[in-house]
Amino acid sequence: MADSELSYDGVPISQLFADEKPGWRGYVEWEEYPEKKRAAAELMKGAKLTPPPEFQFAPLPTTNPVLVGHRWKEEHELLGLKRIVDYSWETVLREKENMIHLLDFPYNGETRHEDLTTKITNNKHHLLERRIMLLHSVRNHGGIPDIDEDAFVLEIGAFNSFQSGGLVNSPVKLKLSDLKDPAKFPQAEVTVTLQCSGTRRIEQISEYPGEGDELINAPWGEGAIGTAVYRGVPLKKVLKLACGGVRPECEHLEFIGADTYFKKGHLFNYAVSAPYRKVRANRGEEVLLAWEMNGQPLPKIHGAPLRVVVTGYIGARSTKWVYRINALPVPSYGPVQRQEYLYFTSQIGKQNAKYSNGFPIGQMPVSSAILTPLTKTVVIHDGKITLSGWAYSGGGNWVERVEISPDGGHVWYRVPPENLTEKHYHAWRLWHIDVPVDAEGWLEFCVRTWDASCNTEPTYVRSAWNWDLHVTSSAHRIKIYSVNRTRAATRERLAVIERHGLQFEPITMPLPFALEEKEAYDEAVAKYPREPRS
Amino acid sequence: MADSELSYDGVPISQLFADEKPGWRGYVEWEEYPEKKRAAAELMKGAKLTPPPEFQFAPLPTTNPVLVGHRWKEEHELLGLKRIVDYSWETVLREKENMIHLLDFPYNGETRHEDLTTKITNNKHHLLERRIMLLHSVRNHGGIPDIDEDAFVLEIGAFNSFQSGGLVNSPVKLKLSDLKDPAKFPQAEVTVTLQCSGTRRIEQISEYPGEGDELINAPWGEGAIGTAVYRGVPLKKVLKLACGGVRPECEHLEFIGADTYFKKGHLFNYAVSAPYRKVRANRGEEVLLAWEMNGQPLPKIHGAPLRVVVTGYIGARSTKWVYRINALPVPSYGPVQRQEYLYFTSQIGKQNAKYSNGFPIGQMPVSSAILTPLTKTVVIHDGKITLSGWAYSGGGNWVERVEISPDGGHVWYRVPPENLTEKHYHAWRLWHIDVPVDAEGWLEFCVRTWDASCNTEPTYVRSAWNWDLHVTSSAHRIKIYSVNRTRAATRERLAVIERHGLQFEPITMPLPFALEEKEAYDEAVAKYPREPRS
Repeated sequence: MADSELSYDGVPISQLFADEKPGWRGYVEWEEYPEKKRAAAELMKGAKLTPPPEFQFAPLPTTNPVLVGHRWKEEHELLGLKRIVDYSWETVLREKENMIHLLDFPYNGETRHEDLTTKITNNKHHLLERRIMLLHSVRNHGGIPDIDEDAFVLEIGAFNSFQSGGLVNSPVKLKLSDLKDPAKFPQAEVTVTLQCSGTRRIEQISEYPGEGDELINAPWGEGAIGTAVYRGVPLKKVLKLACGGVRPECEHLEFIGADTYFKKGHLFNYAVSAPYRKVRANRGEEVLLAWEMNGQPLPKIHGAPLRVVVTGYIGARSTKWVYRINALPVPSYGPVQRQEYLYFTSQIGKQNAKYSNGFPIGQMPVSSAILTPLTKTVVIHDGKITLSGWAYSGGGNWVERVEISPDGGHVWYRVPPENLTEKHYHAWRLWHIDVPVDAEGWLEFCVRTWDASCNTEPTYVRSAWNWDLHVTSSAHRIKIYSVNRTRAATRERLAVIERHGLQFEPITMPLPFALEEKEAYDEAVAKYPREPRS
Repeated sequence: MADSELSYDGVPISQLFADEKPGWRGYVEWEEYPEKKRAAAELMKGAKLTPPPEFQFAPLPTTNPVLVGHRWKEEHELLGLKRIVDYSWETVLREKENMIHLLDFPYNGETRHEDLTTKITNNKHHLLERRIMLLHSVRNHGGIPDIDEDAFVLEIGAFNSFQSGGLVNSPVKLKLSDLKDPAKFPQAEVTVTLQCSGTRRIEQISEYPGEGDELINAPWGEGAIGTAVYRGVPLKKVLKLACGGVRPECEHLEFIGADTYFKKGHLFNYAVSAPYRKVRANRGEEVLLAWEMNGQPLPKIHGAPLRVVVTGYIGARSTKWVYRINALPVPSYGPVQRQEYLYFTSQIGKQNAKYSNGFPIGQMPVSSAILTPLTKTVVIHDGKITLSGWAYSGGGNWVERVEISPDGGHVWYRVPPENLTEKHYHAWRLWHIDVPVDAEGWLEFCVRTWDASCNTEPTYVRSAWNWDLHVTSSAHRIKIYSVNRTRAATRERLAVIERHGLQFEPITMPLPFALEEKEAYDEAVAKYPREPRS
């Protein structure tokens, strides 16, 4: 113990907040030790921390990482947990070097548009180089633990952090080798899209700023989403075969993750739950305990050695590094579920928001995004513009139809069926389309999707705006400067620009030559005079 | 046989198209007799029938029945089936005398607004007078058969009209008394909203006319929907306990109804299907075989003695008078499912519509309606206007939030939780709200609902418009003339009107007195002159 080390009741923090188990580096247990939680809260009281970055009234930095999580790093350092911060960033660099690092810690990484359009879901295991796993976005709430597979144990029903008593008939501890043994549990492989409910938040921010707290240090664009083939065992089967089922009062299964989670000066292990209705749906493939992603071992950053995959739900329910499952009569009291990821009305904000007047985001609505071209792009075309993107809906409602409007939402063109990737109950469809465009100048293109329940998206982002800037479910809209080469005047101007050895872009750069010769001008004005003649 | 009676191959039609079984009046079997179907089609060829009424370019009649189904009656009469037409209308008068009879035959009846707001779902069996059953709307596709309960038999897997072979392990025949025997099958009671996918079609029509075929002889308003508590047995349990389950290739369960269905000169028994995924969901309560509605025997008009109830789906899947169930590897080929109730894009119409380029409407999207006040009502108020209505979503997505906009869709007020009836997975919530209103004159109020998946409704009906005018999923919008008594000028005017012994309405009736005395006018004009002074 160094002289300078912080201590609590005489115990140095390196001992107090040490890793819980050998082989589980970065996993500190909080939920079993109320005293330890209190000690941490005490030590954090009055700490001077850097405030979260303000980015809603100013342009986002163009750096990568875009934002730096000073406050969260300081919190970890204060409690002697810098090792978690360091390991997390090493893991990012090793497993996700090609992402847009929206926030360095806790790590929030968005997939680049060009990577998102790779059709991984259509190729399943065939295209599986390591690169493919880089394609999935990451939204972490704490640091990344480093758990040895051999040391790993999953506890079910053994302990319940927020309620007294668990509701499984027989609590069990399972090693990963037990879970992976096909003689013990039937396995399932499911193609699943997971998304942060903050996907496309940047559109809400550009309309009106919202919650300034830590919740939204992820000004996500269209890339906070990804699709992978997960392999694991249905939780339904594990509950049945290993635990002898759950008691009739069980309504939710709670998942505890090994990451440490800071919230308003208090500490938690990550905790959320999924309804038992969902767990037992169909043959159980809707809630998996997964160790494999796209035919390869789950990467650390995605939850190795074991994560939950809850299909059709907000990604936050798909707990990474899950090590404990509780059977509860009510939804989890974890702050992630009860105090964050709430959907407020447009009249709720700083003046009146409470935990009880927002509704917990669960199943995801129908949504879509245009990935190419990027907004504010100049497109020089011959009467058709090509667009591409993704379309998704939760709750087992597959994507049925994708439509593009080239005029801000009046006329819509359907993406032809051959231009959509295959249907899945629980995954997106990628699409592309050539849209006929006659008009020139700034145009607004938008995409809307219809799912199997005939649900679709409202046309304007104002319809979706909410204080915590979650679930941007409105039609995604981009601005394109259209230059139509099939028009003679445009063709001529493009030729002149080329003769001058110039580029058309940037669109805002004034042309260095006269727009018209004097003779042509006089002729035109003589034909259509500027003023009335009488 | 009367000399004048039509015959085919020497067989009189009274014999050819006779009732199939004793005690099953009005049930003619078509699917088992291809020859008979051919004979009927032959006899109908070239028949001169009254065309369906054109009502989209003109106001609807104000009669009740609103529309008369001449063509369908003539088709029945042509084949000697007038007895079905007559019995159907008698049943309407006996079981549904208080409805808006949108079409007399096949019967389409809409619930009146004032009846819809009765909170039947909150009272379950307590409020159960006969009147309550009158509240549920009716959308029939053929006449009403009159089947004796004792004579009734349900066949499962015995025969398959459209595919060869059924996929149940052991075909069975079950009497109603078998199905009702709790020792044989566990029963379930489920609160379910059923709606025609044509609900609120009138809004689409008022924007742009669409399909002129028989499909839309139901210019429905907000009342083609209803909620009831159904009792029956889960089909899942019957398949398991009576049939030993279905084969692995089974993907759909097909329901054949005893009603006769005419479609473009051909005859069918009613046929649709539901996915096996849906049948086996949860504990089977999502697809019921039901004989009881709100604690009383199912009325004839709603499908007695037995109907299917498919929760969260378009009402057309909840087959009435079901007498045969087939297990199929694909969805039913019944024309109702494959050729009608298709959702087209806004660019598909008379010029290009096919059966394959629409998508079959299954689970219903989130939707809602304002029931009071009616559109184009004058509301004299003191700064608040009270509205009420229903809100619903399919697919097990309960209604989470209802919002009202008093300004056409810019600002939205949430219905307070205490003003909503209780949540159900498969039923609507009725709501009411006092909305603050300052503005006077014509205002547009709309309602939108958010379901448990955060899906909501597009703001304008153009977003929902489709050639067959199905699924009006946009925000329901009404026009109200607002008169705000808290404003002094308005209060004075109302007093003057009262002094004159006049009514404020009709709003379009000119006032018979001067709007202002000369002195007051001169004073006002002197203060704020009409023209500039220099």
